[in-house]
Amino acid sequence: MVRRTGRRPGNPDTREAILAAARSAFAEKGYDGASIRAIATGAGVDPALVHHYFGTKDKLFLATMNSPIDPIDIITEATDGDRDEIGVRFVRAFLRMWDGPRGAAAVALLRSVVGTEWTTKLFREFIITQVLRRAVPRLGLDPAEASLRVTLAASHLVGLAMARYVIKVEPLASVPSETLVAAIGPTVQRYLTEDLPGVFPEA
Amino acid sequence: MVRRTGRRPGNPDTREAILAAARSAFAEKGYDGASIRAIATGAGVDPALVHHYFGTKDKLFLATMNSPIDPIDIITEATDGDRDEIGVRFVRAFLRMWDGPRGAAAVALLRSVVGTEWTTKLFREFIITQVLRRAVPRLGLDPAEASLRVTLAASHLVGLAMARYVIKVEPLASVPSETLVAAIGPTVQRYLTEDLPGVFPEA
Repeated sequence: MVRRTGRRPGNPDTREAILAAARSAFAEKGYDGASIRAIATGAGVDPALVHHYFGTKDKLFLATMNSPIDPIDIITEATDGDRDEIGVRFVRAFLRMWDGPRGAAAVALLRSVVGTEWTTKLFREFIITQVLRRAVPRLGLDPAEASLRVTLAASHLVGLAMARYVIKVEPLASVPSETLVAAIGPTVQRYLTEDLPGVFPEA
Repeated sequence: MVRRTGRRPGNPDTREAILAAARSAFAEKGYDGASIRAIATGAGVDPALVHHYFGTKDKLFLATMNSPIDPIDIITEATDGDRDEIGVRFVRAFLRMWDGPRGAAAVALLRSVVGTEWTTKLFREFIITQVLRRAVPRLGLDPAEASLRVTLAASHLVGLAMARYVIKVEPLASVPSETLVAAIGPTVQRYLTEDLPGVFPEA
């Protein structure tokens, strides 16, 4: 039952209460262990209201993280075209997000991620559920190799974001993004689609 | 003049006072702007005592950062041998440090680096003065290209450390280090020594 007074649809307090309950549920129990029902109970609202405000559990989780982007959008853009250029498109889409209006939110997210154990755990859940589980299947990789290939690429991109947008070390912080696309695109391509001797058994 | 009572050589308070004064001086004025004399004054000790405790300004700065390693040691190891294997040796030396007894201190450093503006600034100074200025010339790269080449490689390694040791995302967190050497070594090699079309003008 939605109460008539206090937290109602359209009330910003309700939205915040759901986010706060979701944040602690995801941090405590992980993505899979945190149910919409339990989150609703924690926020003192009806589960239907959680769906009303946030849609799916994935979308609620992205909102909880203050994620400036749904990773699936970057993967969709990267996979839309010639497979030999997936690395270049991936880096380009990634940098466009950081250089755009949502970049400041991304910096805040990255800073918060390593601040405490529980924010780190939330970010790990984010990588597992939103990147590896939800977005990666669209890449069409060998399932036995996909997770290591994608985490290799992701580790590079997280480090690039750290160096360019958080630590701001020169000249990396100021070079045009297309310079970085030319440098790092082939690396991401290699990690995602090429033979990696010594990493996977030869075909 | 060293005071007879209170802060004396061998007194841990003296060491801590020097570190605290150095930390705020480096954060406020940068590495070049912070003089040993001003740090000594800030700590209420004689400048000779700063040298006695910490040796050079570089060593004092590394101590201020709680750096678990002197970057020059990793570069020395990477450059000791066949130039075609510099990337592989670089990644191996880097991972050995993180997997060793100083790994926990390195995780603490990386967490603290992005916590606040001033720790971020200290880390930027660390990269500029200890990695780019002091260690990189030993790589024997074209000076016009060295800084971008090295920051490309460093961004990947910082991201690898984040993903493997801080966020601990699988399977990256658990694969043997030699698997990562095989995957990432060629990337570092390419960034440091190979042609990078679209990044630098063709020779």
